[in-house]
Amino acid sequence: MKNDVDLRKAYSLLHPRPVVLICTQDRNGKINVMSCSWITPVSDEPPLIAVSLWTKGYTHNIIDETKEFTVNIPSSKLVKQVWLAGTKSGRKVDKTKILGLKFTGSKTVSPPAIEECVGVLECKVKERIMLNEQVLYIAEIQRACAEENLFKNDIWIDEANILLHTGGKIFSTPKSVKELE
Amino acid sequence: MKNDVDLRKAYSLLHPRPVVLICTQDRNGKINVMSCSWITPVSDEPPLIAVSLWTKGYTHNIIDETKEFTVNIPSSKLVKQVWLAGTKSGRKVDKTKILGLKFTGSKTVSPPAIEECVGVLECKVKERIMLNEQVLYIAEIQRACAEENLFKNDIWIDEANILLHTGGKIFSTPKSVKELE
Repeated sequence: MKNDVDLRKAYSLLHPRPVVLICTQDRNGKINVMSCSWITPVSDEPPLIAVSLWTKGYTHNIIDETKEFTVNIPSSKLVKQVWLAGTKSGRKVDKTKILGLKFTGSKTVSPPAIEECVGVLECKVKERIMLNEQVLYIAEIQRACAEENLFKNDIWIDEANILLHTGGKIFSTPKSVKELE
Repeated sequence: MKNDVDLRKAYSLLHPRPVVLICTQDRNGKINVMSCSWITPVSDEPPLIAVSLWTKGYTHNIIDETKEFTVNIPSSKLVKQVWLAGTKSGRKVDKTKILGLKFTGSKTVSPPAIEECVGVLECKVKERIMLNEQVLYIAEIQRACAEENLFKNDIWIDEANILLHTGGKIFSTPKSVKELE
């Protein structure tokens, strides 16, 4: 039997979904990292993604200033870092110090990539749509790369252990189903 | 080692992600179903989602006409129906006949819900953003419901077997990870 769900929690029906680490860099060079799962591809040609960020969050301020960010795809090994990045604010804490992650230079944008992640999208903002307390950014992927042993024929194999956010403190990873041959 | 990924395939890095069945109904009462995984929550208050549809697809025509659709969340039991709904066009085939699914009336919109799905969002379009060959719809959730035994404390339990699209003919389901206690 189906029960009605409180509309403020209705988004939970679209989870579990990939959670990513968004990396930004302000004009003074300060790097910040936050986690986010309200992200989706929206076009393949041109390669565009949409990401929704909270207007009270620090990352949204930096992206408005610089129009650039990297999307870093974590495996389940980084679940603690993902939780920390999503619950601490870059306004109060230097997350590069508490996360214990390595940053490497990007080729097309200023914000760096996170070395421990299995894939990276370098992105530049094209459009900005206000939605009450959220901003939806449409951004174009400038460059993408992925671990060669885990991303094969344009597909993450199960061993990539792509991290999904189920809700609250619960995370999951995908296991292939065999029903479709 | 990370390899560069062809930009036209870069969206694959944001998979596996939930795949949903979008149900529409035209002014003559004809029901159509298609599958889609380029969908994300974008706001909780008001409850908004964004969904990107191909401008050459039939579903996009119906939504432009009626501004309404339902988002139906399938479990892995429906993987064959999801594949069919995503590979046949409603312009050529009456998908209600080939999918073998039951439709039940919605409360706030005209398009029905799919009974075999574990959750449903009834949606009305608020904004429409053209992105070359895709249209991004921002829609407000009017009503949401979910199977009471599978959606607990606003979270899908593992037994819901929420269907994720990995890529091509490969689908997966989420399994909770235990690293965060």
